[in-house]
Amino acid sequence: MQPIIKLFLADENGEKFFGEGPYQLLKGVEKTGSLHAAAAEMHMAYTKALKIIKQAEKALEYPLIRRAIGGKDGGGSQVTAQGKKLMKSYEQYKDACNRSCKQIYQEIFRS
Amino acid sequence: MQPIIKLFLADENGEKFFGEGPYQLLKGVEKTGSLHAAAAEMHMAYTKALKIIKQAEKALEYPLIRRAIGGKDGGGSQVTAQGKKLMKSYEQYKDACNRSCKQIYQEIFRS
Repeated sequence: MQPIIKLFLADENGEKFFGEGPYQLLKGVEKTGSLHAAAAEMHMAYTKALKIIKQAEKALEYPLIRRAIGGKDGGGSQVTAQGKKLMKSYEQYKDACNRSCKQIYQEIFRS
Repeated sequence: MQPIIKLFLADENGEKFFGEGPYQLLKGVEKTGSLHAAAAEMHMAYTKALKIIKQAEKALEYPLIRRAIGGKDGGGSQVTAQGKKLMKSYEQYKDACNRSCKQIYQEIFRS
């Protein structure tokens, strides 16, 4: 037996708008420089990926990704500075919660 | 913005078999003395409720509910002593994790 912990950020109405899925999408955009490519890596339709990002941006009231315009490679997307800050906070939150809950699990279920 | 924390117990392969749904079903059986009634209260098909309980019992290798046979009211189900112990452990685990993760959330996202 093992514990599984799923963490989300929700708006004031309890509507979840950020968690592992959106986080992995942003990681993919960082890596590939493209939401299209990030969605494809997750076997997710681009329209679904875009909807997930737009919903999170609406709840957060700031942009997570920005379309890179022109330049040698044209198109593509980048994670904004605010997006990077959210990713870092989410990583810290996730790591600390996982550590804490696993310890609590051991204390309660293994005693 | 607020944190939402979802907790599950999983088997060695990572297959989730217990969480808020099964817990609420057991609470319903405790309250109503019937898995039929507990499922109905959750607007869940009885067959689905039975499948959830059976899967959890298989992973845990002990019975969570026991059919009450005969007696004035006939039929019906009761939560076993092992089921009650699991419910109590889950409650403690959930409460402690929620408290801990909410504090971590405050520290990371409100600072």
